Amino acid sequence: MSKTVTITGAAGQIGYQLAFRIASGQLLGASQKINLNLLEITPALGALKGVAMELEDCAFDALSNISISDDPNEAFKDSEYAFLVGAKPRGPGMERSDLLQENAKIFSAQGKAINDNASRDIKVLVVGNPANTNALIAMSNAPEIDQNAFTAMMRLDHNRALAQLASKLNCHSSELSYMTIWGNHSATQYPDVSNLKLNGNDAINSLDDEWVKNEFIPRVQNRGAEIIRARGLSSAASAASAAIDHMRDWALGTKTDDWVSMAIPSDGSYGISEGIIFSFPVICQNGAYSIIQNLEIDAFSKESMEITQKELLDEKTAIEHLL
Amino acid sequence: MSKTVTITGAAGQIGYQLAFRIASGQLLGASQKINLNLLEITPALGALKGVAMELEDCAFDALSNISISDDPNEAFKDSEYAFLVGAKPRGPGMERSDLLQENAKIFSAQGKAINDNASRDIKVLVVGNPANTNALIAMSNAPEIDQNAFTAMMRLDHNRALAQLASKLNCHSSELSYMTIWGNHSATQYPDVSNLKLNGNDAINSLDDEWVKNEFIPRVQNRGAEIIRARGLSSAASAASAAIDHMRDWALGTKTDDWVSMAIPSDGSYGISEGIIFSFPVICQNGAYSIIQNLEIDAFSKESMEITQKELLDEKTAIEHLL
Repeated sequence: MSKTVTITGAAGQIGYQLAFRIASGQLLGASQKINLNLLEITPALGALKGVAMELEDCAFDALSNISISDDPNEAFKDSEYAFLVGAKPRGPGMERSDLLQENAKIFSAQGKAINDNASRDIKVLVVGNPANTNALIAMSNAPEIDQNAFTAMMRLDHNRALAQLASKLNCHSSELSYMTIWGNHSATQYPDVSNLKLNGNDAINSLDDEWVKNEFIPRVQNRGAEIIRARGLSSAASAASAAIDHMRDWALGTKTDDWVSMAIPSDGSYGISEGIIFSFPVICQNGAYSIIQNLEIDAFSKESMEITQKELLDEKTAIEHLL
Repeated sequence: MSKTVTITGAAGQIGYQLAFRIASGQLLGASQKINLNLLEITPALGALKGVAMELEDCAFDALSNISISDDPNEAFKDSEYAFLVGAKPRGPGMERSDLLQENAKIFSAQGKAINDNASRDIKVLVVGNPANTNALIAMSNAPEIDQNAFTAMMRLDHNRALAQLASKLNCHSSELSYMTIWGNHSATQYPDVSNLKLNGNDAINSLDDEWVKNEFIPRVQNRGAEIIRARGLSSAASAASAAIDHMRDWALGTKTDDWVSMAIPSDGSYGISEGIIFSFPVICQNGAYSIIQNLEIDAFSKESMEITQKELLDEKTAIEHLL
């Protein structure tokens, strides 16, 4: 049986990376046939047609069917894996609150379309910013879908942190484990190395506290801006790669002896308010995630988690009328 | 042991797709560690730095090391798999002969750098257009490397043909086999369905000869222009995907009961002149390709092969002084 995967904003930079990596079998394995439902805004349908033509031209074994549409009801029909990538970027002179409102409209419509059309077992990953609050809006507009189906992407921050730590510790990122990103996918996120292991051994003592606080944390928090300065464009391929990591691990399970960071509906763990989409360390098994409990949280961590929680609560207040 | 892979034009649209798919393990398998050597022209080094940063940020298990450079001698150092993607595109008012000359300079320099620095077992795939003649120039400037190491990409045309045929025959492209593209990666190429099989059975009788000659062949020949009209940009993700297919099959072997199309130095098979890089049907085993011999060539095919051969001979004449 083919699985149906939806990508919104599929003609954009991230979507253009994501669609081909998924169609080549990197999400669910090369032997799992996939239907790709691609959504774009009406003015981008021409470009999206071009993307669909290129997907055909790849003759991918795993790709059964491609459909393109500007109608969310069509794009989410029977969808089992949805990547919500398309979002309104911040334009010149636009306030953050305007940005929240504009995106709130998009994600409430998509939440409704998911509610009305998607598989009851859908897994939703919001990539489009402000991702956590966009996920909250979509979730709130899909009351018939399990709220735990709505997540936002922190894996890019998680992977960025691993890359910085590997460079510092002169190892390969695959030798590191138990990295955590807490909170919002924004500059308030808290990259937490308290539990980091290098080849299974505690790594915290190999890291200088000053470096962690004054270089590592701000660098991970602001890596997106650093990429824009270098490329002249925002992160696309690395965002697509992290989106695949997030969804694949959720669907097929996380590695043993490690965890990943996912922004999920808070259940009150670690004192984080319910009703926001907050990043926690999680493991995934049998298609479900669960928060790692009982980690020790020191004063610095507690304070850092409160800062990013406050931002999410403020974002929620700004769009409360749409929930 | 890590394998060293070189990509030229790595900050361009195709390179940006290719680098991430290779680094994610799709060229040589997820367990084969890779060093990526990325080459760009000097003005693009800033953007290339951004690409390298994003590659780091993916925390790919298979990616050992990334180096970026504007010096071909550095980029081809110990290279075992080289994707020559960067080429000068045709600018406004530029004649085809100017285009050949401009690219001839790039590919002769890269051929020399391969000769002086690369692994003696390097496999070279030229993607940048005019690909076949660029490959010829690179080959001619690398006398110490086996000339069969130099190939040009026809796999995109091959895959495009499969996609069109699958659509026509209402099947999946993976059910088709024994498609052939002969000749030059240009509008003179000859997509030949004479040997096509659908699920192992001859398919030629299911195809209307008029459709093949008046719709299918011109459509495959001109698919690049069709994509540009739809996307506003030339094929990038599909070209990168075909490049991976070409190199992976060459390195790891083609599927049984099928062949692929690769532009390779002609050995005189099928009466094609030696000294040009011409696409033939080939199988790959143990890292080497061999041309399928003794196929029946009817009058239409013979004429079509001569047209595309003539174009390659003309291109060769235009750059003969650089060989």
